Amino acid sequence: MPHTAPKTQRQSARTILAVNLRRMRAELAWSQEDLAAEAGLDRSFVAHVERGARNISIDNLEKLAVALAVPIARLLEQ
Amino acid sequence: MPHTAPKTQRQSARTILAVNLRRMRAELAWSQEDLAAEAGLDRSFVAHVERGARNISIDNLEKLAVALAVPIARLLEQ
Repeated sequence: MPHTAPKTQRQSARTILAVNLRRMRAELAWSQEDLAAEAGLDRSFVAHVERGARNISIDNLEKLAVALAVPIARLLEQ
Repeated sequence: MPHTAPKTQRQSARTILAVNLRRMRAELAWSQEDLAAEAGLDRSFVAHVERGARNISIDNLEKLAVALAVPIARLLEQ
């Protein structure tokens, strides 16, 4: 490998979102099913997003933010 | 209509993004083509996003944030 990895790597947007979602859901003591129901999304979709396994769209990000009653930017704050 | 519209309507996430992108691009004096090239996206895609006409994904939001050298949350701050 020609280059060593940088010491502080930028966290991917998917990872930031996953961490935030799990934390916000825990603060509300909501299950993935609760969040999915509030947001009008499938539980399996929420589970995938919380693993960083889905390339979620802005419209679905907005549904999650509305369900959690936070500004959408908060979902992506590191 | 049974209900009158609320006085202050929540701005949609697409609109917030569109306004921010146009402002950030203007601050850098970049054309849509410049931003698209920096982000590795099509100019027409950027144009659509700046009109709120595309349901952009988190991966592409991240490309725009990296191109503009801002944290991704900044793209969605009202």
